[in-house]
Amino acid sequence: MTAVEELARRAKAAAAELRAARPAMRADALRRMSEKLAECRERLLAANASDMADAAHLSEAFKKRLRVDGQVFDYMVKRLRESASLPDPVGKVLEARTMPSGLEVRKVSVPIGVIAMIYEARPNVTVDAAAVAVKSGNAVVLKGGSEALRSNLVLAQAMRSAVREAGLPEDAIQMVPTADRAAVAELLKQDKYIDLVIPRGGKSLIKAIEAGTRIPVLKHYDGICHQYVAADADPEMAAKIIVNSKCQNVAVCNALETLLIDAAAPEATTEKIVAALRENGVELRGCERFRERFPGCVPATAADWDTEYLAPILSVKIVDGVEEAAKHIAEHGSGHTDGIITGSPELAERFTALVDSASVLVNASTRISGGGDYGMGAVVGISTDRLHARGPVGPEQLCTYKYVAVGNGTLRG
Amino acid sequence: MTAVEELARRAKAAAAELRAARPAMRADALRRMSEKLAECRERLLAANASDMADAAHLSEAFKKRLRVDGQVFDYMVKRLRESASLPDPVGKVLEARTMPSGLEVRKVSVPIGVIAMIYEARPNVTVDAAAVAVKSGNAVVLKGGSEALRSNLVLAQAMRSAVREAGLPEDAIQMVPTADRAAVAELLKQDKYIDLVIPRGGKSLIKAIEAGTRIPVLKHYDGICHQYVAADADPEMAAKIIVNSKCQNVAVCNALETLLIDAAAPEATTEKIVAALRENGVELRGCERFRERFPGCVPATAADWDTEYLAPILSVKIVDGVEEAAKHIAEHGSGHTDGIITGSPELAERFTALVDSASVLVNASTRISGGGDYGMGAVVGISTDRLHARGPVGPEQLCTYKYVAVGNGTLRG
Repeated sequence: MTAVEELARRAKAAAAELRAARPAMRADALRRMSEKLAECRERLLAANASDMADAAHLSEAFKKRLRVDGQVFDYMVKRLRESASLPDPVGKVLEARTMPSGLEVRKVSVPIGVIAMIYEARPNVTVDAAAVAVKSGNAVVLKGGSEALRSNLVLAQAMRSAVREAGLPEDAIQMVPTADRAAVAELLKQDKYIDLVIPRGGKSLIKAIEAGTRIPVLKHYDGICHQYVAADADPEMAAKIIVNSKCQNVAVCNALETLLIDAAAPEATTEKIVAALRENGVELRGCERFRERFPGCVPATAADWDTEYLAPILSVKIVDGVEEAAKHIAEHGSGHTDGIITGSPELAERFTALVDSASVLVNASTRISGGGDYGMGAVVGISTDRLHARGPVGPEQLCTYKYVAVGNGTLRG
Repeated sequence: MTAVEELARRAKAAAAELRAARPAMRADALRRMSEKLAECRERLLAANASDMADAAHLSEAFKKRLRVDGQVFDYMVKRLRESASLPDPVGKVLEARTMPSGLEVRKVSVPIGVIAMIYEARPNVTVDAAAVAVKSGNAVVLKGGSEALRSNLVLAQAMRSAVREAGLPEDAIQMVPTADRAAVAELLKQDKYIDLVIPRGGKSLIKAIEAGTRIPVLKHYDGICHQYVAADADPEMAAKIIVNSKCQNVAVCNALETLLIDAAAPEATTEKIVAALRENGVELRGCERFRERFPGCVPATAADWDTEYLAPILSVKIVDGVEEAAKHIAEHGSGHTDGIITGSPELAERFTALVDSASVLVNASTRISGGGDYGMGAVVGISTDRLHARGPVGPEQLCTYKYVAVGNGTLRG
């Protein structure tokens, strides 16, 4: 048995214990996890400083994800504390009915089992994933980017000791303790013990993981997110929403990538939006009709409509009505997050009916599609799959269900 | 574009129309489907007679699945009519909350899109799958066993014309119109158009399909189902439940395969059960402790505990208490359907907490784990997957969800 196989086997055994544990024990474990985490502040900051020192040659974006300063650390602890106070997702009666036969049928939420998280060098994901897993009664096997290994080992050790002190198996949280990439391949072979793999990272990494395992994979692909500015949109609100959607953080999956402006929108609305974007240093790439009004704008190529820039670039297209907007989104979007800005409830309703994305927004920034702003607490990511879990993946999404049927000698006729 | 690709492309377009259609139109389509089906009775019986004539050399079990007589036909029509009257699973608000930001977040059920059903030569599955698909706003591509092709084409034609007359796209129901096995391989390539594949049939077929496609597969594997007879079980009820679980239909996934009897159960209880099973022609294969009491019984080998007999054979094991029963089920069961027979609500609760199967039953036959007895109407099968859908797969299970979030200029801080 390899080290990774042994680790997965122990996770499976821990999952069975966790599943049968009283709900109060899981809540207690989460509270202790936040306390233990708070206690390891200095050790964690020191471990992260070592990780950062070795990563000095890497990109700023990479280091931004890896870095844990006091503020990031406090936020980690806060999220863990919040998770403890959220409602328990396990054992919820999702449906209940009594059949004419007298059979009482209940559909009850239960943990999935063992989740493997494969992710970038982001220590905050280590904490969020452990929080979501324990909250939902699952065991988790964590394999974070090797550049964060020192930080992750400190975090995992603190959370494991908290789980143990709560009377639950510490193997519910396991960190693959190596920078060896072969460990990922080995992890993906453990379909006997692991019920679900959640990879985070680039599209090619996720595709490779999916191709290399028989374990179900919950995918987090890119977000080619749209805002559609209807003719009646309030210009001030539209400009603010679009700037926030594009600029609040350009490097994330729910950042805006394509702006659709209704041809019937007043000149002043479009001008206000364009001025606001340019003030914020956003490069615009426009369709022909847009460039007739803003000739200085770079022309958008066919590829632009299918591009997730993750950069201060925005493609802009003039469309005729909500149907054309929805059609463009269906053809070029990624089903992640798409919004409309309008004063008309009827038009908003038409848009939300036509657009089949995980999050469909009305008068809100694309950046708010996520666990926190939806009231779901910590999440492990935003799924672009259609099955099982769509959109933010929190504790409820890491549950499945079973039917409990109580009869009185009930037979099949 | 191949014929199968074209068919899948048309299904995708139909799915978009179906998704946006008013709920009343889908209900109307289902009513018309049952009427049109009733009208094609004679044509269908004739087509099925031709299919049966060509299948004369095949096994009785095979022919039993293929045959549609008047009674089977009437039941098909009845199931369609019932589907029309069940609650609409689409557009249900599954969760709703208003966040402190003023954002109104709703989680709403929506159709998955296009479902491909690959199944045996069973005409009733053609009707059930179409009913479940239209009910849930999905388009369906049907590929039934080629021995049923004539029957299936009559059924599909009738249901398609009903959908068209209801003002919906007839391409929502499509039958791969060929006995050519290469069509399945071609169908599995259509990941651009098909969102989910549901194969039914033997384990090797399902495994081959899963290995051969990038489309998500909802699996229906075997049922190694257990009943655990607690020490306090009513002997009369226990005997009836066990005979019904084993004998009502031995060839199906929710038939009983292993009986666990508590060592503390009175001799008389065990004797009553054994006598009832023997009267019904069931061969028993017992563990050592069971054979001490019934020396004539065939000894069970290690393989017996992991075998889905689908035949009048039952393995029997004496266990010490509910924990050992649950442990045996976890090790040897398939997570399909497992039950306890007991007079004690506390013991029943312990069992349902310990056993993590799709259906966990108390004082009921394993044969009742299914759509009908659970009040779900027609289903396309019983999933043994843990993700997305577990247990009976009806219209609700062929839905996913999206978040609709309505703000008032809501930004991310």
